[in-house]
Amino acid sequence: MTEYDYIREGDAIYRKSFAIIREESDLTRFSEDEAEIAIRMIHACGQVEAAQHFHFSADFVTSARGALKAGKPIFCDAQMVAHGVTRARLPADNAVICTLQDPRTPELAKAIGNTRSAAALDLWADQLEGALVAIGNAPTALFHLLEMLDAGGPRPAAIIGMPVGFVGAAESKEALAESRHRMPYAIVSGRMGGSAMTAAAINALARAGL
Amino acid sequence: MTEYDYIREGDAIYRKSFAIIREESDLTRFSEDEAEIAIRMIHACGQVEAAQHFHFSADFVTSARGALKAGKPIFCDAQMVAHGVTRARLPADNAVICTLQDPRTPELAKAIGNTRSAAALDLWADQLEGALVAIGNAPTALFHLLEMLDAGGPRPAAIIGMPVGFVGAAESKEALAESRHRMPYAIVSGRMGGSAMTAAAINALARAGL
Repeated sequence: MTEYDYIREGDAIYRKSFAIIREESDLTRFSEDEAEIAIRMIHACGQVEAAQHFHFSADFVTSARGALKAGKPIFCDAQMVAHGVTRARLPADNAVICTLQDPRTPELAKAIGNTRSAAALDLWADQLEGALVAIGNAPTALFHLLEMLDAGGPRPAAIIGMPVGFVGAAESKEALAESRHRMPYAIVSGRMGGSAMTAAAINALARAGL
Repeated sequence: MTEYDYIREGDAIYRKSFAIIREESDLTRFSEDEAEIAIRMIHACGQVEAAQHFHFSADFVTSARGALKAGKPIFCDAQMVAHGVTRARLPADNAVICTLQDPRTPELAKAIGNTRSAAALDLWADQLEGALVAIGNAPTALFHLLEMLDAGGPRPAAIIGMPVGFVGAAESKEALAESRHRMPYAIVSGRMGGSAMTAAAINALARAGL
């Protein structure tokens, strides 16, 4: 068992990883709290260059942490996001909710003429006020969330908008950042994003001793 | 509900996404089957440039698909990988197994002086022969798998080696590709990788009508 020379201690791996990221990445335009989140997101994708696409509204960290501290749920568009959240770190045993596999979702999707990822959000309504929303997969989910706000729906505390991909992802994140609802947001502009970066952002919010 | 102009039909989004990826990416060095996998992996990370880091051994697709068709389990190092697998697409209702949260894992980790991600693999032994292994998070898990092979342990059918990050990720994937065990492999060389690309590779293997 001695052929491979590698670090076998989890904390040491984290420390070295974060040190490399701080060394190689340009985090100067972030606040200290935002930089912590950015580092975790870079860690999740293995690319220091990704940081140029990270954008936080000025009120994001405070609003998102406030929601977590107040015990509000975390709503996720995808199971991979939900399963990337380190539950033990959450400050108030917050619920982590994904309704994509809810049996009502396929019918809802037909009814509203949208994807299941978008329709799943209609099941969030009664707990959405003041919650943390994390969209890490589907642009349609992020667009639909903005539509729900337009329709006078409940207002989450903050939105992590990081859908990934080639159709609608960049546009949906731009729409969030430019929305007249002025929601506290964290986005990865352009095509990049995904469940790992999204979960990393949640874990970074949760970890810094709320 | 008409402010945002976006495609709301899942299949149409997929078709357009894959068309954009085929248009923009260089897939010439892949076989047709490998290209299908590469497209899904690009889709998962939103970056056509990522394809330059994808490497498949010549026997990977046949070996991995053979394992799935034979009903062998899919062993994953992380819950996010396991939860990214589209179960309905699997050809033989294959088990998708992640033992990271197994109650025995922390003790095992102490016993072998490695991370929990690595120790979790010691619980796979009795079903590992001929199985599909998918490492999408932890370099230590991939290194430990190679150590298990060195020690004469069971031989999986194929290894998807796509851990992400700054410490050990590149080295562990290189070790897999250069291993004297000549395992059928798919890797993302360098720092990139992750649970989404790994799950995408599994889903691509499973979907093409086995």
